[in-house]
Amino acid sequence: MVLSHTSHPGNIGSTARAMKTMGLSRLVLVNPKRFPDPEAVALSSNAEDVLVAAQVVSSMGEALAGTVLSVAAVGHTYDLSQRLVTCRTAASEIVVTAAAGDVAIVFGTESTGLSADEVRLCNFAAHIPGNPAYTSLNLAAAVQIFAYEARLAAVGDRVRDPATPDLATHDDIERLHEHAARVLANAGFYDPANPKRLLPRLRRMVAKARLEREEVQILRGMLKLAEDGPHPGTVAGRNTPGTSRGNG
Amino acid sequence: MVLSHTSHPGNIGSTARAMKTMGLSRLVLVNPKRFPDPEAVALSSNAEDVLVAAQVVSSMGEALAGTVLSVAAVGHTYDLSQRLVTCRTAASEIVVTAAAGDVAIVFGTESTGLSADEVRLCNFAAHIPGNPAYTSLNLAAAVQIFAYEARLAAVGDRVRDPATPDLATHDDIERLHEHAARVLANAGFYDPANPKRLLPRLRRMVAKARLEREEVQILRGMLKLAEDGPHPGTVAGRNTPGTSRGNG
Repeated sequence: MVLSHTSHPGNIGSTARAMKTMGLSRLVLVNPKRFPDPEAVALSSNAEDVLVAAQVVSSMGEALAGTVLSVAAVGHTYDLSQRLVTCRTAASEIVVTAAAGDVAIVFGTESTGLSADEVRLCNFAAHIPGNPAYTSLNLAAAVQIFAYEARLAAVGDRVRDPATPDLATHDDIERLHEHAARVLANAGFYDPANPKRLLPRLRRMVAKARLEREEVQILRGMLKLAEDGPHPGTVAGRNTPGTSRGNG
Repeated sequence: MVLSHTSHPGNIGSTARAMKTMGLSRLVLVNPKRFPDPEAVALSSNAEDVLVAAQVVSSMGEALAGTVLSVAAVGHTYDLSQRLVTCRTAASEIVVTAAAGDVAIVFGTESTGLSADEVRLCNFAAHIPGNPAYTSLNLAAAVQIFAYEARLAAVGDRVRDPATPDLATHDDIERLHEHAARVLANAGFYDPANPKRLLPRLRRMVAKARLEREEVQILRGMLKLAEDGPHPGTVAGRNTPGTSRGNG
């Protein structure tokens, strides 16, 4: 990430933090107004390592030396002769090109962004599609979104260590439906000769819920309770005898 | 956006700003530590309207009353019985459901996030896939990413008012290649009987650049210059006669 002529050291600190949350660590500062600065450290949270390793240079040319691709982050689409893409499209190109060499994403000042000359030094421009009526995206927030998109382009949009659900099988579900139909018919909840929309609605609800095996067991336990009434001696049986519909 | 028990009013201000950049305006605060507060206003930039309209409530239940879907933003995947998705997946479900009624995205405190009880009140949980070794995402930065994903899910990932390039046609490009081959052969730049890889390389370079009509004209002008030499009386002709290769 390259920040040009940043005014507020706090934004440099927040940028370091935003980068680190997405696994990025190389920060280059072109003529920052105040750096190093305690405010940058304060706002970096535990990303001070990114600040310590940051490189300060005196020109954009120096910042981009050695890069094989540079992308200008632009907040407005002023006089751009360059190709303009969204940051998501940029991220996917960045990740592909990063295999070939260093890639820079370049951000301008808080108040005016990159100059037209700075944009021209880059291969193309990218912007974050936002509310056209309020484009006041904070510098570190813009870095956060670019870094997030770059990470997702690199590692994929997926949940870390997802718990694998123990899903019920088709036949578990069919037995649940048979059980429910029997219990509800016996209870007079619907007329089996004229089921109307009740059973299809139940089927739809169960389909949407993508039940796990244990959830099917819980539901069948509840159906069994409705069918048989509470077992004598259970807490439910002792405390709420009124809910009993008799045994058998 | 629902923020629960936020400690720092500055984060409420930054959240308002982050929301507004993505066109969101409805903020609900559950027991904020300090609100209203001048620090919130200072950090909201010009999004003070979001702060002024913010609703302060005393419980998560009150915040979620009337919503048809609530999504818990979680930074870590602790003891979740809920379904867990990425914020991009959540955003697409949120946008679909928003047609049916109010949808909440719920954020916890800066230090510990949402409590397990708060997460349980939501329909499902979503997290931002980040650097597992450094998960210290700032509250407003997390709101920014969720708001960004929600906006892109709603309006699409596209460049605002892109300039439509006036692309050169296939036959424009073919004439450029013919011209280049003739000029380079005449100049002895390659042996037409043994073109090796020069012409295919040029062809590849031109294909990648997706030239516009005007760019083809510029390149053909340069080829013509190489072919004919500078016109007498042009600046190039006067100043750099050595570049002339003669007329014809």
